[in-house]
Amino acid sequence: MHKTQLGMHLVWDRERTLALYIGGGVCSCLLPHGSPMVRTGPAVLAPFRLDNAVLMASVDHSADALRRALRTIPDFPKPGIQFQDITPLLADPNLLARAADVLAAPFADSGITQVVGIESRGFILAPLIARQLDAGFVPVRKEGKLPHDTIATSYELEYGTDTVEVHADALDADDCVLIHDDVIATGGTAAATAHLVAQTDAALAGFSFLIALTDLNGRDALPADAPVHTVLPVAGA
Amino acid sequence: MHKTQLGMHLVWDRERTLALYIGGGVCSCLLPHGSPMVRTGPAVLAPFRLDNAVLMASVDHSADALRRALRTIPDFPKPGIQFQDITPLLADPNLLARAADVLAAPFADSGITQVVGIESRGFILAPLIARQLDAGFVPVRKEGKLPHDTIATSYELEYGTDTVEVHADALDADDCVLIHDDVIATGGTAAATAHLVAQTDAALAGFSFLIALTDLNGRDALPADAPVHTVLPVAGA
Repeated sequence: MHKTQLGMHLVWDRERTLALYIGGGVCSCLLPHGSPMVRTGPAVLAPFRLDNAVLMASVDHSADALRRALRTIPDFPKPGIQFQDITPLLADPNLLARAADVLAAPFADSGITQVVGIESRGFILAPLIARQLDAGFVPVRKEGKLPHDTIATSYELEYGTDTVEVHADALDADDCVLIHDDVIATGGTAAATAHLVAQTDAALAGFSFLIALTDLNGRDALPADAPVHTVLPVAGA
Repeated sequence: MHKTQLGMHLVWDRERTLALYIGGGVCSCLLPHGSPMVRTGPAVLAPFRLDNAVLMASVDHSADALRRALRTIPDFPKPGIQFQDITPLLADPNLLARAADVLAAPFADSGITQVVGIESRGFILAPLIARQLDAGFVPVRKEGKLPHDTIATSYELEYGTDTVEVHADALDADDCVLIHDDVIATGGTAAATAHLVAQTDAALAGFSFLIALTDLNGRDALPADAPVHTVLPVAGA
């Protein structure tokens, strides 16, 4: 699919850019923060319906197949959380390939040199996205796990703080970075990762998530000018 | 490379099978536990020199390039440990692809259906190996991380024990499993993972490690009849 995709760039209102990538039944919409969401049927661009959603949507047959493979686990890791389990998707060779395709596709022409994956589940698909984009893979890990000199950023959790790190020499001025995690919830870890990238000389091209828990508004925690691509928006927290 | 490789199977002494896979400058030797090691020049199968090594070797130009990208970090995570840092290798798009190629190549004809990756660093290359083999990916995680019903196995550490888990429904009688981690040290985690697989109805096809710390004899901890493929044997602990 990534070989045959067709890229179209449309100028949106107030000089925002709306990029539509269409290929193999996939239609992904890249919208800057604050843009109205564009809803499309599979491979059909009209009619558009505008609302206040700020996450990007990828609406297509691939997404339907991926969504069907999700398994909701109630009350994990604690009561009240509906955990989205992606392991049935990962165990299916076709869906594993398709997930990497649709996560990478909107960034095929973005000149990505490094895909940053967030420990631990972000390690699974980020290298596959990197292969799709002919880029390298850079791990962001919890404190103390990376062996060489690091840059660190702390962020707030519900109770207390957490710290993520990247190797200080992992990214430089020649790099154009895509940040990936499997799920965006409140966006704390992804925002901290963007902050790590901002402490290097690399450019941030955007974010690509398999799942967004849309009720948690994680997109609001991320840099407003960075494209955020989500394959599977899921209502709930 | 995986498309063009040539597979040769030679019967070895005492009915052991020595399999040589040659393609794209890669020569990998798959030897059962206890076999003498066969040393080859790049793409040259003779002369053989036999010694008592029990880990398998992949001796080729790809391995040389991968080895040069390793970075040794002294005294990490604790004094006396020479940590093999693979992040420079992962950040290089060509080496990332090549690592997946050489890890997968010996198992191209083994009918692998699932590649099991061990948390956390095993998550990085296992999905790429799975893509090479047109297989799925199954995560083995530390205790309490997997959301659905699990099978668990504990194993001894230097001080205390650790536990790894796999989803109880992740593998069945139709599955042929390749276990991957980036490094084999004492082999405790890999052996525990093999024990998890043995508790399912799946068949274990073998192990594929990027690095083996040969002084720690991790191979001895693994099932004797399982092929173990190591791309980069490293002396030291």
